[in-house]
Amino acid sequence: MRLLTEEEIASHLAGARGWERAGNAITRTVKLGDFRDAMLYAGAVAHLAQAANHHPDISISWNKVTLTLSTHSAGGLTEADFALAGRISALP
Amino acid sequence: MRLLTEEEIASHLAGARGWERAGNAITRTVKLGDFRDAMLYAGAVAHLAQAANHHPDISISWNKVTLTLSTHSAGGLTEADFALAGRISALP
Repeated sequence: MRLLTEEEIASHLAGARGWERAGNAITRTVKLGDFRDAMLYAGAVAHLAQAANHHPDISISWNKVTLTLSTHSAGGLTEADFALAGRISALP
Repeated sequence: MRLLTEEEIASHLAGARGWERAGNAITRTVKLGDFRDAMLYAGAVAHLAQAANHHPDISISWNKVTLTLSTHSAGGLTEADFALAGRISALP
């Protein structure tokens, strides 16, 4: 999987609702109603991750879920990250 | 909930399999077989957390789950943290 150029990353980020650049990764924090909702959301993200065979880091802190996406095998951001980011952003 | 003294913390930690001190918190990292197993483990931890009405921060990175326990309302470690840590350590 090819690393994206800075221009490509900027272009993808412009369309990636809620995602921010964090070095070699992109990150998104979602605030849910409570811990239970946060765990259910993490489960939905995990399902999308398994389907894509691409797995974000997932951090749950009470009602907040922070997702971090990077393609470790490529050493940075690839199309796979933004493809999954888009699917995650499409969750209700 | 009363903050534990340093002596009490040291005594609890000695019996808390896999847990380490991290400032005002205790932390434990568990390595599972893969992402799916990590999510299932996080779900088991979440169930124990809901039952205790005490919620660790949970971070999942592929097959690793890191748990961080602290009693935010008390500003540090209390009996509630070690009670839940013990229940989590008792998971298979």
